Amino acid sequence: MKWYVVASLLTVLTSSQGILTTLSQSNGKYKYDYATVPFLAEVFKFATLTYVDTSTYQIMGNLKIVTTGILFRLFLKKKLSNLQWMAIVLLAVGTTTSQVKGCGEASCDSLFSFPIQGYMLGILSACLSALAGVYTEFLMKKNNDSLYWQNVQLYTFGAIFNMARLVLDDFRGGFEKGPWWQRLLNGYSITTWLVVLNLGSTGLLVSWLMKYADNIVKVYSTSMAMLLTMVLSIFLFTFKPTLQLFLGIVICMLSLHMYFAPPSMLVDLPLTAKATPEHLVEVSVDRRTDS
Amino acid sequence: MKWYVVASLLTVLTSSQGILTTLSQSNGKYKYDYATVPFLAEVFKFATLTYVDTSTYQIMGNLKIVTTGILFRLFLKKKLSNLQWMAIVLLAVGTTTSQVKGCGEASCDSLFSFPIQGYMLGILSACLSALAGVYTEFLMKKNNDSLYWQNVQLYTFGAIFNMARLVLDDFRGGFEKGPWWQRLLNGYSITTWLVVLNLGSTGLLVSWLMKYADNIVKVYSTSMAMLLTMVLSIFLFTFKPTLQLFLGIVICMLSLHMYFAPPSMLVDLPLTAKATPEHLVEVSVDRRTDS
Repeated sequence: MKWYVVASLLTVLTSSQGILTTLSQSNGKYKYDYATVPFLAEVFKFATLTYVDTSTYQIMGNLKIVTTGILFRLFLKKKLSNLQWMAIVLLAVGTTTSQVKGCGEASCDSLFSFPIQGYMLGILSACLSALAGVYTEFLMKKNNDSLYWQNVQLYTFGAIFNMARLVLDDFRGGFEKGPWWQRLLNGYSITTWLVVLNLGSTGLLVSWLMKYADNIVKVYSTSMAMLLTMVLSIFLFTFKPTLQLFLGIVICMLSLHMYFAPPSMLVDLPLTAKATPEHLVEVSVDRRTDS
Repeated sequence: MKWYVVASLLTVLTSSQGILTTLSQSNGKYKYDYATVPFLAEVFKFATLTYVDTSTYQIMGNLKIVTTGILFRLFLKKKLSNLQWMAIVLLAVGTTTSQVKGCGEASCDSLFSFPIQGYMLGILSACLSALAGVYTEFLMKKNNDSLYWQNVQLYTFGAIFNMARLVLDDFRGGFEKGPWWQRLLNGYSITTWLVVLNLGSTGLLVSWLMKYADNIVKVYSTSMAMLLTMVLSIFLFTFKPTLQLFLGIVICMLSLHMYFAPPSMLVDLPLTAKATPEHLVEVSVDRRTDS
């Protein structure tokens, strides 16, 4: 399978995940126990959110693109060209641009007005999140275990931690709602099942990319998903198209092309590199005739 | 003189022009007759402004960057690399990003809500403006006349047209305020003189660039001036720094680097282009000893 097929698939699934999650709400509330749908790094998110608001948190999340590039270079020793570094910065700038608050929106001008701890936690969060990604790539590529076995290892851990959380929640709540497995599928609708299926498939695609492609491909994939979600939201929900969304899409597309296109397509290589045949040196050799 | 020195100078002067013009106001009004400070293309601007608002007009002005690239390619037969085209689009996107209306600003959500004529005129205006630039470059480079003589020719025309306008205004106003030359310097302050001096110098720098560099250099120069003006306005006036200004600056800087940096700095050239010495073919030549 080609890496860009998997990456595109991940884009579509990640994007439809947001759409499906919204569709699975009824009257603006989730019918099912939110904790049964696992989300990693939630704890850190809550810590950061005590200092900054949601949109600032979302904007800072784009830092992860740049930190992934840096840790990718440092720990996996992958070399990126100057142009590819610029493409990574552009991708972060592009996704941020698409999220700039339009005029007339509530809670404005707040981006630079939070306590410093909020920003520190945001940066730390971006580094940790990138580190997790880079470390996963390292582990997946380190040995020749089959992808299936590696998936089993990865997701067993995930399942255990999520189960532990559900049990803990039950103890905290004094088993008022009964043990979690009795209400595991309560209120699940078709869309809820689609969300679960989607999350599962997304996870498998991510591990495929980690093993056979790399973190940068994954970052592009999920960034494109973010933009795709916003475009789809225009048609599906009451999301107004903004100039900044359009600009963000253009920037990210240029970034994508800059990162992945072969250099020979992007620049006019110096003539010596393209067309000069090896210098033909005319040498006339006179063989000594021994006879 | 190196082209980038002239381009930087043009950036500083164009930028300080905006600042000076604002400073030369008193109580928000210009003390001197605005028509004595020449601005070309004003007529077209007023036609467009009957359909769209000022900020939309300003946003559409960035189209000129792209149309300049296209006409530059078509009429001056200059070839641009794929990467340079991307840089030009990025420059337009970057300047537009910096101008995105922040939240809480008046007159919002209006960008896509004007009659189609407004946008058509905007695009036409961008084409005409680019055409004027490209044609000037063609004229300045066509022959070996000294830059000084070409400047005399250029600015004599400008002076005649502006004089004609002043005379026309007088006739329209029935000479109520007397002929224009009697109030030519009315209300001129030091800053007004600086504006005049600045406009003059800017004009000379532009013609230098047209003759010895090109339109694209000029477009970069004036775009950087726009950003510099916004940054200076934060310190000099009550301009609030926005996230979109920061993003716009990053985008334009990356674009600048992409356009002007030598390709070998941007991409890892294929090995054959960089390091391979010419193939050393060992040829043993045995010379026939005639003796």
